[in-house]
Amino acid sequence: MGYIVAVDGGGTKTSLCVSDLKGQNRKYVYTGCTNYKSIGIKKTKENLKEVINKALKILGISIADVEYFVMGLSGNDSEKDVQVLTGILKDIGINGNYYLCNDSELALFAGTDTPGIVVISGTGSIVYGVNNDGKKVRIGGWDYDFNDLGSGYWIGREAIKHVIMHCDGYFPNSNLFDRIKKYFNLEKIENFTFYITASKKNFTKIASIAKLVVEEAKNGDELSCSIIDKAVYYLAVQAKEAYKRLKFPDGNQKISVVLAGGVLSSDIVSEKFKSKFIDMVGRMDNIHFIHLQEQPVEGGIKIALKHLQKIRILKN
Amino acid sequence: MGYIVAVDGGGTKTSLCVSDLKGQNRKYVYTGCTNYKSIGIKKTKENLKEVINKALKILGISIADVEYFVMGLSGNDSEKDVQVLTGILKDIGINGNYYLCNDSELALFAGTDTPGIVVISGTGSIVYGVNNDGKKVRIGGWDYDFNDLGSGYWIGREAIKHVIMHCDGYFPNSNLFDRIKKYFNLEKIENFTFYITASKKNFTKIASIAKLVVEEAKNGDELSCSIIDKAVYYLAVQAKEAYKRLKFPDGNQKISVVLAGGVLSSDIVSEKFKSKFIDMVGRMDNIHFIHLQEQPVEGGIKIALKHLQKIRILKN
Repeated sequence: MGYIVAVDGGGTKTSLCVSDLKGQNRKYVYTGCTNYKSIGIKKTKENLKEVINKALKILGISIADVEYFVMGLSGNDSEKDVQVLTGILKDIGINGNYYLCNDSELALFAGTDTPGIVVISGTGSIVYGVNNDGKKVRIGGWDYDFNDLGSGYWIGREAIKHVIMHCDGYFPNSNLFDRIKKYFNLEKIENFTFYITASKKNFTKIASIAKLVVEEAKNGDELSCSIIDKAVYYLAVQAKEAYKRLKFPDGNQKISVVLAGGVLSSDIVSEKFKSKFIDMVGRMDNIHFIHLQEQPVEGGIKIALKHLQKIRILKN
Repeated sequence: MGYIVAVDGGGTKTSLCVSDLKGQNRKYVYTGCTNYKSIGIKKTKENLKEVINKALKILGISIADVEYFVMGLSGNDSEKDVQVLTGILKDIGINGNYYLCNDSELALFAGTDTPGIVVISGTGSIVYGVNNDGKKVRIGGWDYDFNDLGSGYWIGREAIKHVIMHCDGYFPNSNLFDRIKKYFNLEKIENFTFYITASKKNFTKIASIAKLVVEEAKNGDELSCSIIDKAVYYLAVQAKEAYKRLKFPDGNQKISVVLAGGVLSSDIVSEKFKSKFIDMVGRMDNIHFIHLQEQPVEGGIKIALKHLQKIRILKN
């Protein structure tokens, strides 16, 4: 009996799902980061091996029993990355029987069976889309420091920027600053400048400030609203660009827009996003928004099933 | 015969000036970073020892021959920093006979003998001011990632943000992008996204993009102009806040505004800054702009001479 393995390799967490060839009897295992740009080639190999071996052990099978792998890996951004990652896969015993993509592709297919776009805003952000002809488009997700616009990290950084401006006396008070003071356990918000300059940058911690900004935006805090509006603008303009380039035909074809990640799981953000996106593309007839409930790794199993079906058709 | 030592301790370079008690016969020596927040306490001690020993060796004197030290150190941002730095100074043999401040204070006194404000925009940015009563104010300079608004790094980051938006197809072309392509030796600007995600963040390299933005702003490039205008706005609003808090009296008192650092050494940036600042404070009668020509460490010698004079008056 054969098996399918899908891997969703992220910057902080990696999820693996293994199923039978019908996509049933799914089992899940997890490990840490498998982005080779963050942790290097050696550690990426170790973590990938570890998570695959965990799964094989649970089922009592060997790697030769896996008929097809879908490897959705973050950091897979260019032809050069494909070369590096192909080498990694070969070294850990995955040969030929795999599909390698960016992790965002898994999130798209976890949310929909039709062509469409996924907009992810969690710690980072990225937009990814596929049309009926199989054309793929990817926008954003290039770097926390310069890109990942509208992400949790981006929102957190905007908030911190304004806290410091307030500490320095040239930005008025905001409810957000009280929330941040409590969140960081600071006696006075003015201690924040010292806190931030003395502390090592922690992407996840900074991105986690986004939830305070979202909550205060719900309460009507002016600064928080303006940060969220700007984040939504960036996400919508990227999604619109993907939409434009995929040249979806006019007519009755349903176009899915999948919303994923912690930031877009908030009602206020997703509603603002939908309205801004509809505004920008100038149509709403066939656009169908989906809030991703599944784990992105489920999308990997869907991709594997489609690919295996094609392979079988070609063989017969 | 006694000596004075002034140290301007920066994040990349540290300058030391030693002079006799009249401030004459100046000698200069240099070393690398002495910001303990960047390189740790141990390495800071080593670098400070090294630069001081170099100077003592040149003059053939011992540390006991130094009558007064002025230590202007970056990373000296809070009471806790003063504690840490006092410990470092004690450990390298500097006891009691010193004045410890932030490095920006040296730049102010290098430029002027009167009360005033220094606005520094180099790799980082900071505003520092002193009034006639000796009241000190410091705005900005807290962190490359979240603050240092209007700095070279800030300008470089804004430029990179727009390059990536252009590569992703949702920002129009700009002359700036051609310049950046050449600067980074890229065949296609579209390779930039891969370049930036694959490369380690290099603050100095990113800040060095600022000079391309300034040049293209001079040529009238729209994007470059808008980045420079925003940088100037941030620098001016910080300088205005320092000015406001120092409560300079109305009347004939001359108020110096010293402009320092690579970004503000450009005519187009400094002229825009002057005009924006004058606009914001709503007066120009006694405001006197000075382009810093001296090394900031010279300001340390001036401070030392003033302090020694006071000490002598108190002793007699």
